[in-house]
Amino acid sequence: MNPDQLRSLIADVAAGTTSPDAALRRLTHFPGEALPFAHLDHHRMLRQGQPEVVFCEGKTVDHVLAVCTRLFEANGSFFGTRAAPEHAEVLRLRFPRLEYNALGRTVHLRLDPAPPPSGRGTILVVTAGTSDLPVSEEACATADALGNRVARLPDVGVAGIHRVLGSQEELRQAAVVIVVAGMEGALPSVVGGLVAAPVIAVPTSVGYGASFGGLAALLGMLNSCAAGVTVVNIDNGFGAAAAASRINQAWEEGGE
Amino acid sequence: MNPDQLRSLIADVAAGTTSPDAALRRLTHFPGEALPFAHLDHHRMLRQGQPEVVFCEGKTVDHVLAVCTRLFEANGSFFGTRAAPEHAEVLRLRFPRLEYNALGRTVHLRLDPAPPPSGRGTILVVTAGTSDLPVSEEACATADALGNRVARLPDVGVAGIHRVLGSQEELRQAAVVIVVAGMEGALPSVVGGLVAAPVIAVPTSVGYGASFGGLAALLGMLNSCAAGVTVVNIDNGFGAAAAASRINQAWEEGGE
Amino acid sequence: MNPDQLRSLIADVAAGTTSPDAALRRLTHFPGEALPFAHLDHHRMLRQGQPEVVFCEGKTVDHVLAVCTRLFEANGSFFGTRAAPEHAEVLRLRFPRLEYNALGRTVHLRLDPAPPPSGRGTILVVTAGTSDLPVSEEACATADALGNRVARLPDVGVAGIHRVLGSQEELRQAAVVIVVAGMEGALPSVVGGLVAAPVIAVPTSVGYGASFGGLAALLGMLNSCAAGVTVVNIDNGFGAAAAASRINQAWEEGGE
Amino acid sequence: MNPDQLRSLIADVAAGTTSPDAALRRLTHFPGEALPFAHLDHHRMLRQGQPEVVFCEGKTVDHVLAVCTRLFEANGSFFGTRAAPEHAEVLRLRFPRLEYNALGRTVHLRLDPAPPPSGRGTILVVTAGTSDLPVSEEACATADALGNRVARLPDVGVAGIHRVLGSQEELRQAAVVIVVAGMEGALPSVVGGLVAAPVIAVPTSVGYGASFGGLAALLGMLNSCAAGVTVVNIDNGFGAAAAASRINQAWEEGGE
Amino acid sequence: MNPDQLRSLIADVAAGTTSPDAALRRLTHFPGEALPFAHLDHHRMLRQGQPEVVFCEGKTVDHVLAVCTRLFEANGSFFGTRAAPEHAEVLRLRFPRLEYNALGRTVHLRLDPAPPPSGRGTILVVTAGTSDLPVSEEACATADALGNRVARLPDVGVAGIHRVLGSQEELRQAAVVIVVAGMEGALPSVVGGLVAAPVIAVPTSVGYGASFGGLAALLGMLNSCAAGVTVVNIDNGFGAAAAASRINQAWEEGGE
Amino acid sequence: MNPDQLRSLIADVAAGTTSPDAALRRLTHFPGEALPFAHLDHHRMLRQGQPEVVFCEGKTVDHVLAVCTRLFEANGSFFGTRAAPEHAEVLRLRFPRLEYNALGRTVHLRLDPAPPPSGRGTILVVTAGTSDLPVSEEACATADALGNRVARLPDVGVAGIHRVLGSQEELRQAAVVIVVAGMEGALPSVVGGLVAAPVIAVPTSVGYGASFGGLAALLGMLNSCAAGVTVVNIDNGFGAAAAASRINQAWEEGGE
Amino acid sequence: MNPDQLRSLIADVAAGTTSPDAALRRLTHFPGEALPFAHLDHHRMLRQGQPEVVFCEGKTVDHVLAVCTRLFEANGSFFGTRAAPEHAEVLRLRFPRLEYNALGRTVHLRLDPAPPPSGRGTILVVTAGTSDLPVSEEACATADALGNRVARLPDVGVAGIHRVLGSQEELRQAAVVIVVAGMEGALPSVVGGLVAAPVIAVPTSVGYGASFGGLAALLGMLNSCAAGVTVVNIDNGFGAAAAASRINQAWEEGGE
Amino acid sequence: MNPDQLRSLIADVAAGTTSPDAALRRLTHFPGEALPFAHLDHHRMLRQGQPEVVFCEGKTVDHVLAVCTRLFEANGSFFGTRAAPEHAEVLRLRFPRLEYNALGRTVHLRLDPAPPPSGRGTILVVTAGTSDLPVSEEACATADALGNRVARLPDVGVAGIHRVLGSQEELRQAAVVIVVAGMEGALPSVVGGLVAAPVIAVPTSVGYGASFGGLAALLGMLNSCAAGVTVVNIDNGFGAAAAASRINQAWEEGGE
Repeated sequence: MNPDQLRSLIADVAAGTTSPDAALRRLTHFPGEALPFAHLDHHRMLRQGQPEVVFCEGKTVDHVLAVCTRLFEANGSFFGTRAAPEHAEVLRLRFPRLEYNALGRTVHLRLDPAPPPSGRGTILVVTAGTSDLPVSEEACATADALGNRVARLPDVGVAGIHRVLGSQEELRQAAVVIVVAGMEGALPSVVGGLVAAPVIAVPTSVGYGASFGGLAALLGMLNSCAAGVTVVNIDNGFGAAAAASRINQAWEEGGE
Repeated sequence: MNPDQLRSLIADVAAGTTSPDAALRRLTHFPGEALPFAHLDHHRMLRQGQPEVVFCEGKTVDHVLAVCTRLFEANGSFFGTRAAPEHAEVLRLRFPRLEYNALGRTVHLRLDPAPPPSGRGTILVVTAGTSDLPVSEEACATADALGNRVARLPDVGVAGIHRVLGSQEELRQAAVVIVVAGMEGALPSVVGGLVAAPVIAVPTSVGYGASFGGLAALLGMLNSCAAGVTVVNIDNGFGAAAAASRINQAWEEGGE
Repeated sequence: MNPDQLRSLIADVAAGTTSPDAALRRLTHFPGEALPFAHLDHHRMLRQGQPEVVFCEGKTVDHVLAVCTRLFEANGSFFGTRAAPEHAEVLRLRFPRLEYNALGRTVHLRLDPAPPPSGRGTILVVTAGTSDLPVSEEACATADALGNRVARLPDVGVAGIHRVLGSQEELRQAAVVIVVAGMEGALPSVVGGLVAAPVIAVPTSVGYGASFGGLAALLGMLNSCAAGVTVVNIDNGFGAAAAASRINQAWEEGGE
Repeated sequence: MNPDQLRSLIADVAAGTTSPDAALRRLTHFPGEALPFAHLDHHRMLRQGQPEVVFCEGKTVDHVLAVCTRLFEANGSFFGTRAAPEHAEVLRLRFPRLEYNALGRTVHLRLDPAPPPSGRGTILVVTAGTSDLPVSEEACATADALGNRVARLPDVGVAGIHRVLGSQEELRQAAVVIVVAGMEGALPSVVGGLVAAPVIAVPTSVGYGASFGGLAALLGMLNSCAAGVTVVNIDNGFGAAAAASRINQAWEEGGE
Repeated sequence: MNPDQLRSLIADVAAGTTSPDAALRRLTHFPGEALPFAHLDHHRMLRQGQPEVVFCEGKTVDHVLAVCTRLFEANGSFFGTRAAPEHAEVLRLRFPRLEYNALGRTVHLRLDPAPPPSGRGTILVVTAGTSDLPVSEEACATADALGNRVARLPDVGVAGIHRVLGSQEELRQAAVVIVVAGMEGALPSVVGGLVAAPVIAVPTSVGYGASFGGLAALLGMLNSCAAGVTVVNIDNGFGAAAAASRINQAWEEGGE
Repeated sequence: MNPDQLRSLIADVAAGTTSPDAALRRLTHFPGEALPFAHLDHHRMLRQGQPEVVFCEGKTVDHVLAVCTRLFEANGSFFGTRAAPEHAEVLRLRFPRLEYNALGRTVHLRLDPAPPPSGRGTILVVTAGTSDLPVSEEACATADALGNRVARLPDVGVAGIHRVLGSQEELRQAAVVIVVAGMEGALPSVVGGLVAAPVIAVPTSVGYGASFGGLAALLGMLNSCAAGVTVVNIDNGFGAAAAASRINQAWEEGGE
Repeated sequence: MNPDQLRSLIADVAAGTTSPDAALRRLTHFPGEALPFAHLDHHRMLRQGQPEVVFCEGKTVDHVLAVCTRLFEANGSFFGTRAAPEHAEVLRLRFPRLEYNALGRTVHLRLDPAPPPSGRGTILVVTAGTSDLPVSEEACATADALGNRVARLPDVGVAGIHRVLGSQEELRQAAVVIVVAGMEGALPSVVGGLVAAPVIAVPTSVGYGASFGGLAALLGMLNSCAAGVTVVNIDNGFGAAAAASRINQAWEEGGE
Repeated sequence: MNPDQLRSLIADVAAGTTSPDAALRRLTHFPGEALPFAHLDHHRMLRQGQPEVVFCEGKTVDHVLAVCTRLFEANGSFFGTRAAPEHAEVLRLRFPRLEYNALGRTVHLRLDPAPPPSGRGTILVVTAGTSDLPVSEEACATADALGNRVARLPDVGVAGIHRVLGSQEELRQAAVVIVVAGMEGALPSVVGGLVAAPVIAVPTSVGYGASFGGLAALLGMLNSCAAGVTVVNIDNGFGAAAAASRINQAWEEGGE
């Protein structure tokens, strides 16, 4: 049942050409049909306040261009992750204002004029090692695209614990902390013990041998002895930022 | 929105006290609400033709008795899996007609009078070894409770391949074949190569060492070189029978 | 013992030149020999109603051409999976009527004239995301090649549950439903709760990190809380379609 | 360097008996010593706003009683998880006001008088099946003990998707949603697609066979296709509530 | 087709009441039917020279007694593995000559009079540590029951490599060597480098932590750098002895 | 202690210039030194009757040429596995009689004149599918190079069980059977139930998805319900042949 | 060749009754035989400076008593791990001076009079949580029994990083540091970054869910970003102490 | 708080412009701030006596050159691991004295003049097979760069146990032994039983099939039956050498 059909049905009831019982029968049987596919994106925007994000990996340049163009036409902006340089090049020809985060592999076309960042505070992205930076940058670019203030704290691995401690001021000022780490994945436990804000841990596939593609870091974070740490998938900087944005922006939406 | 509320809304539209637009707005926003929780079981019966099944494991005797009594009052029958002897004992006090399959650990109270089996043909449950019988019996009892004709072919492991070959007549007469096997789980591949009917493979946790609780059999079945074999969870005789029943009984429901 | 030898033996018994006991002894000892290798394909066609399917991956273009030509000469048709564009190109030179499903990587030469689809109803292939489409298309092309009516329902992931609900009409009209999903593999559980038809779940290797090459989706599907869902190997669109075809076509074969 | 030593050092500088350079040298070398062990708990309370929680499992009744008594003397309250009935019994003799959540296995002695709940909104704990309730209750009791308003939404598994949809109103009113599910762990993906609030997923060890003690649910949740879902350890209702409380209560602490 | 039916069929051909063609048709279609179930054990004895072995674990005392009695009546002897003391007690009441290997958990009733051991030479069972002895003894008792000469070489772990080297004489005199080891499973590699005879490695579940129930030993043995080492399942002393017996006894059967 | 030193020591004792006690002390302390490194290959040949085999993978063409040349000079022959076409090309320039098994990737330079095959009987290599042939051919070439008679039985997967049964004559004539299979690895169980000879199972990495690089086949074979089946590493055709050769050739060496 | 045989052989050479060549031949062939089994323990003590340690788990009380008595008679002392209270009770009846570490489950009978501790410095055993103490105590008792000075630093988990930093003085004074931690196993990385001494990490099986019996901690420690951390098996406090003792005591033995 | 701020604070106290109490408060709250980021490397050198090591893998040639140049300027030397030939080429243009270990993939620029090796004795690197040499050479080059005497013992796999025994003299003279082995990883157990020195085991990813990328060797080493063996990550030659250097060099630092 598409919206027009629904509208007709209700109009028919109002007009008396369909009995309430007949209308009831149709509506009871197909509860989901009231939401037609074609209106989905609008509904999602209303439901979650977040536009669709384009996952570019494995998509052709033409496909990505088509999807982004359609999103631009609907929303005046778009955001994509796992974008290769080729994706960015072709998009920039069509959208000269495009921003490409080469390390984080994201493409972003902001609204024009761009609204100021919103949300209660700053999302701080803490990174253990330089090899983890691509994941961190994906998180930073995503959090930025979703309208948040973002700060970075790079290169604070636990084997040099003094670096973490020397950054306590910045850690405490964040509304949400994202911690990105590979290898043993111990950093979120340390950070989680230092701050009161929510901490989202992102294991990375950085490492070799018994890191098993990020499994060691993932398990380490899931077993964190610091209460209040939650975890996302390996290398999922995007997901961490989406969660952080939900936390940071809930307050923009007004009370319940 | 419960059914009464939905009925009221439609009535209000019919009466002109609610405008079509206002009704439309409510219906668009909450597509799922049209199906109220309290009516769920009836809806499920209509939707799938299968009553709810009670999973007894980990439930107290009192809890199982209460649930079964409620189902009996609604449907005149009930069926439960993973029932311990204690469950069966207490249920039999209340329902003397109760059938308890001690090996398969199922409890069944049939409709009175019981309808004849339905479905296109027979569900044949093939078992590799005697240790796999509890899982097979769970499958047999479930298929029976769901209204199917059931046949058994026990003790036909692949290391004595002649036993399988000696049963080709029975294999070919089945509408659906369930194959239950532990250890290396090779039997479904052999059976799948001998029959044209759908084959559902059930790995069991029978074995030790590198069987890893049924993982070896599960992987073997998933990698079967016989096309047309599908697999359910380890020890899940119930699930195999539920799937077999869906296959066998679709024809009862009339055409599309 | 080849068929000629078997024929001779029986003739000798009939002629009295071999005693019944001697014949009995030979037949008891070598039960399998009665089926000679050279007659295998014919026997399989009789036994299962399905011709052999060519798995092209890892085979040279010349090898695939030779096998397909032999099958064409025997059956007037052939079907192959995991075919690279090079395979298709060379086959088309020889068989201009060849159909190549580039996304699903299948090659198909239909009988000429092609028989109409058979089977009780339609096999519906439901797909969670666009990245899962290659597996879905393998399933669609296979189901079609095995003589079934096929329908598609793409892009209905569970995170936008309204899309699934908006398609309930199509879901309910299918004789068999194949559900293809990667990542968390949750879609079959939702679909399994909405339909009464058999549901075959295909996990895909789509995902990254803790998807572990499709393991997450596979485990999710095996643990589905919806009774009646069965599972095939990761990315095995072919196997799902072969099983679905067994279910859909059993009724063509006449009763038992 | 303990606090007294630090105090002496600074006093010596003020008195001129230690040169600034000498003081600098000592302070640079031993940055961590300034925080003496004995002051730890107070510091933690300041740092994170959460008192220590007692993990009772594997501790003797006497040990738990001693620790709780010490915490009561310091804070006027205490909270413990994984408490056996024996733990609760002995604690209640000493603390008659003790609340024991038998299903969630928590012990709680509130402040007297108890302060009203704080935090921006309600933490909603959604549960897939009745077997998952012990984990849900641990989450509920923890969130309550940490000063939050808590609501429950039980028995909304994905195989009966209409139940989830019928609860959209409650889902949308929550400030944070905790989703507890075993087996395939699909519920957080569905919920994550319906709400804008942060969603914390808790896999449970409910299931058998290929659930591998909760691994299937854990992997499913980590691979959720719904952006913004984060995950905690298997059966870790406590950790989910601690994280949810961090999210819900940050706003009580004033701005940055 | 049971033996009587087969006999009838052949007799009918001989008598001329069934035509050779009709007989041929039935025999071609059902190649496996010629081997009736009831003759299976005899056939197996002919085919492999080994009687059936009773796996007692998980079987009731009554069940084991029944099976052993039937085997005794057919063969004058029986052999069982994984027998608990209760099994042995009850069997001994009925069969006073019963031998029970309490460490290896085997029950054996020899033929009376017992034939001398056969086979080309001795099967030597080498054991790494005292905790591995139950598995070794299962192997020894099985090899003995299958008619082989057996020798033991206990307590020769690789961390005291001199013990292995001090036993080279015994190692070289064996026709087949079974090596039983848990923990790191290194002993078969060392032994495999010292002898020319076939070496069968048995990993045991002895160990803790990262031995993962024998997985470490199993993987170690499969990756042995000594060519000519083959492996059986974890704790499968029976299987190793059965394989060793096949090797040792082939020569009894005469040439090809 | 090198051989010259050992010789000197003994000579000194004989000459009376070293006392027996002093000689004893040195020999007791360093039991292993009596075997000098430079004599290793000769010792190994004596100890095990097998020359060293060159594992070519990962070695440069020059390195392989140098090693093979040295072996040729010592033994008049050499044999290598995992040889790429480049390895074979360069070796053939130097050794025109070289045999290169392109499928099995082995290089072999026979003794000239080549001795006739030895051993008690034939090693039969059974292969499940055409994709498994590279591993089978490695086994065949190795068994041949080690001096055994070799026979092949290809393409006898379990889903077409009649093929296996049609080959029982060949199976029964083998002294040792090597069974090579990927996917579910079920063939060794079937073969093990048909023959009395030792059966060595080789899992291959053929498959996809839940075959996990051969793990499914490996576990299937380790859990075989056919007693007397032993297993080697995934894709280890060489190891299976080396073990089979030990079994087949022991009888050449004379009694114990 | 036992020592007497070796002695005879040398004497024969000295006497001229055996030629040097004949002696050489025997010695070359059996290099390992020179070390007879019966002398093993003495040799081990010389070779490694450590007496044998009794692993009591799974041994009967009588067996442990017998072994300890034999060791006492040989060495005047003994040491055992994984000793249950029953073991300790019976041993104390025989050896009233016995020390039983109930938490670490070790039994120790010191030499009388006991020698002072040796080794270069102190072995410091750092423990993350109170649940890890049994493993720590096994390490402490073992290090003590092997003659080292031992110090303890308990309850310094990384979520309260200030506790670690407050203990830097003690950490720096240790000759070897053993770090015992379960859950995420992050503590060794932090400690490894603070000290210059060798650090041995012991993962424990403390935790639940995704700790997978200590696997998470093990992988975390193996992937430690702090160079110079080595790891032992899960819960292997004994092994860590044995390694630490090797490091600490090498200097007692004099130069090379 | 950067060093200048710390200096100011202390100066203010000395000058009386800040009260001791105020200074105390700042210092107590932020114990980590006293260690400013810019001084980190110097602090590390003091703390651990080891300069930072450059992990080149995944870094651009320009990045590596920049980092090495900075280290050279600070320390007059640098050392890097996992360096590709391209890295070495560019570095050599700038630093003609550069040493490149092509097998071990390390780059080293020594101090000029280079100090003599230090430490108590020699670090012996034992290697099982030639394929393990890259890992061994990484260990050798690292141990050398950290100032130790290094010796090599290659090609001593356990299947030719005589080679190990023939090297006992060298094994006993080492202060620390590093054992590098792939496949079954059995060598450290054998070596650990022969020497009294600390043994560090390095599993390598050498192998195929069930070696699972080094997992088999890793598990084997963790389960070693030789007490006193510790383990590092798969292929982590660097980590083993860093740990060995800590052990060997502790004695250079003077007593505690």
